Amino acid sequence: MASEDGQKAGGAGGENEGAEEMVVNPWEVAVKGGGKIDYDKLIEKFGCQRLDSSLVRRVERLTSRPAHVFLRRGVFFAHRDLEEILDLYERGEKFYLYTGRGPSSEALHLGHLVPFMFTKYLQDAFKVPLVIQLTDDEKCMWKNLSVEECKRLARENAKDIIACGFDITKTFIFSDFDYVGGAFYENMVRVSKCVTFNKVVGIFGFTPEDHIGKISFPPVQAVPSFPSSFPHLFSGNDNLRCLIPCAIDQDPYFRMTRDVAPRIGYQKPALIESSFFPALQGETGKMSASDPNSAIYVTDSAKDIKNKVNRYAFSGGRDSIELHRKYGANLEVDIPIKYLGFFLEDDDELEHIKTEYGAGRMLTGEVKKRLIEVLSEMVERHCKARAAVTDEMVDAFMAVRPLPNMFS
Amino acid sequence: MASEDGQKAGGAGGENEGAEEMVVNPWEVAVKGGGKIDYDKLIEKFGCQRLDSSLVRRVERLTSRPAHVFLRRGVFFAHRDLEEILDLYERGEKFYLYTGRGPSSEALHLGHLVPFMFTKYLQDAFKVPLVIQLTDDEKCMWKNLSVEECKRLARENAKDIIACGFDITKTFIFSDFDYVGGAFYENMVRVSKCVTFNKVVGIFGFTPEDHIGKISFPPVQAVPSFPSSFPHLFSGNDNLRCLIPCAIDQDPYFRMTRDVAPRIGYQKPALIESSFFPALQGETGKMSASDPNSAIYVTDSAKDIKNKVNRYAFSGGRDSIELHRKYGANLEVDIPIKYLGFFLEDDDELEHIKTEYGAGRMLTGEVKKRLIEVLSEMVERHCKARAAVTDEMVDAFMAVRPLPNMFS
Repeated sequence: MASEDGQKAGGAGGENEGAEEMVVNPWEVAVKGGGKIDYDKLIEKFGCQRLDSSLVRRVERLTSRPAHVFLRRGVFFAHRDLEEILDLYERGEKFYLYTGRGPSSEALHLGHLVPFMFTKYLQDAFKVPLVIQLTDDEKCMWKNLSVEECKRLARENAKDIIACGFDITKTFIFSDFDYVGGAFYENMVRVSKCVTFNKVVGIFGFTPEDHIGKISFPPVQAVPSFPSSFPHLFSGNDNLRCLIPCAIDQDPYFRMTRDVAPRIGYQKPALIESSFFPALQGETGKMSASDPNSAIYVTDSAKDIKNKVNRYAFSGGRDSIELHRKYGANLEVDIPIKYLGFFLEDDDELEHIKTEYGAGRMLTGEVKKRLIEVLSEMVERHCKARAAVTDEMVDAFMAVRPLPNMFS
Repeated sequence: MASEDGQKAGGAGGENEGAEEMVVNPWEVAVKGGGKIDYDKLIEKFGCQRLDSSLVRRVERLTSRPAHVFLRRGVFFAHRDLEEILDLYERGEKFYLYTGRGPSSEALHLGHLVPFMFTKYLQDAFKVPLVIQLTDDEKCMWKNLSVEECKRLARENAKDIIACGFDITKTFIFSDFDYVGGAFYENMVRVSKCVTFNKVVGIFGFTPEDHIGKISFPPVQAVPSFPSSFPHLFSGNDNLRCLIPCAIDQDPYFRMTRDVAPRIGYQKPALIESSFFPALQGETGKMSASDPNSAIYVTDSAKDIKNKVNRYAFSGGRDSIELHRKYGANLEVDIPIKYLGFFLEDDDELEHIKTEYGAGRMLTGEVKKRLIEVLSEMVERHCKARAAVTDEMVDAFMAVRPLPNMFS
């Protein structure tokens, strides 16, 4: 039986949809034939809602501050039940935020920072608590990494996350290897009872040759959606709603979670979902941790950034200066413009660059130069912030503790 | 590829083996056609070893005490690697014991007590620590029971287990809902990575319609076999061997565990396995918690016991006194004789009863009378011991704590 949250057709990217087949699940984002992700089609296929400009304006009104760049420029472009979250917020009720990361690599790239930068904005704007899950168990089961290495990576990644500026009085960071147990495990069991093997095959594309660690993992990512998984934070507040900022490839997990929630007496989590941060080589998917030249890392030096942008960032500029002056750049495929769209906060300047570049009056080199400035500054700021994060701060963020002023 | 520990043919009871098909797995014990369990065939099918009298004599020699009734009368009839455990014990090395129970009912029946009575003997005889797992999570996933109810039943069952007389300085009792997490969860993940869905289908007979809670459960029962799952007990003692006393229907779990252990750098657990305590109605399987008249419960009154034994205990006596005097009782099918075999400690008296009853000089009524005395006394003793078990004692046994003198 199709659920309200169900996909419109077939599995998470299994069926053929004509010439360009999209595969979007938590472990793979690809378009066969090398085309661009069709986000409209993804919304239709997943059954979520488009986050339109009236909703963005409502967020601005309710929070009395301008919407985040990622919101007003459509990086976060889809949602589930965001209206409900705003309705209850308007009535003076609260909610909590939940996001996370699978710690599979030492260094984060800029795409990894996107949900955390946005989540920090949401935390500041709505003044709500936040739980951040580090799925070290997932990475141990999917990658050929030891338990110890995944736990180490989780702590290293926690430093990058803390460097994004989260409020320690409102933020609980946990790794699954540390935190699974007690009320959290009880909820894992409650969810697991409601999901058959056939169901996870349909949602995630698992096969009978997959190990049972993979098959049993989805409830681990599901249960932070339920406040009762965090008795030290939300005890006696079992109906508190949860809003999850994430990239849209995580939607399968929460489609499953929303299906199960009412069956175990819990509220469905709401979602606010982003498109993918494109690779330097062009917008066909997410950046890949396995190809270091596809991404800018937060550990890249200014020289690395300059080199990568100049050498690899796919340009929509024309083949010669003459043609460029005549036709202007193709902004639709231009990666420097895409990246500036994420990270250049000044709307007027971005508009100016797009106009000039699109009209051929500005050259790729000039746009790349500005992008290098923006990224270098941002990465330098992140590095300084990360260097200031001590092991004691990691311990403090990860301590299982009440957050008495988390709603104020 | 068939492993050393693998079954000789097919799944855990799926294939047809001729007229009488045995199904023996942790959730079902049955012979189609209603015949008796063929334990020799089960040993062959599971690939374990028969526990012969020379091994029993070796246990007596090493522990300097007579073997437990359940050993010398063949109730524990099969094993895996018991020789190795005895070898290392002889060299002055130690091991630990692991057993458990799925808490699905309030009251235990006599069959439930068998592994605990035997485990207490092993603990006393070898002077070794013991971990007892209460799989409240399993019962929550298999039965239609809430998390809360399963946790309550786990504590109630812990009282019956404690009443068996375990040494609190050597015994750690834990429920999965309380204890899963940390090092225990890390080992669950390590095991889960090594077992495919197809593999658990082969071992346990799961289907794609089963929920993922069932599919992911086997590692939970596997990991108490590894000392590193209990850092508060065995920290730095990662090669400590584990001996598991259990009924043979649990063999599939530990076949899987023994398969996985060397792949994750752990020692295989050794096993000592019992036949099933027969139902009052006859020896075709285990007693069933769902039919109260199939079993004597530890909560039954003396009157209940008298009534159940007289009314339901299957007799091997003949149809008339004349025939009985002439042919004698059929001891092979006589339940009072079977039960006395478990619980009448005096070998001479048991031999005498069997001789007289088998020759027709003793009548069923007389044998049942003796059984009623033995069971009533045993149940009364258990009830008294259980009544003395306080909530504080349960807390004390279940506290996560070191056991400094566990090997002395």
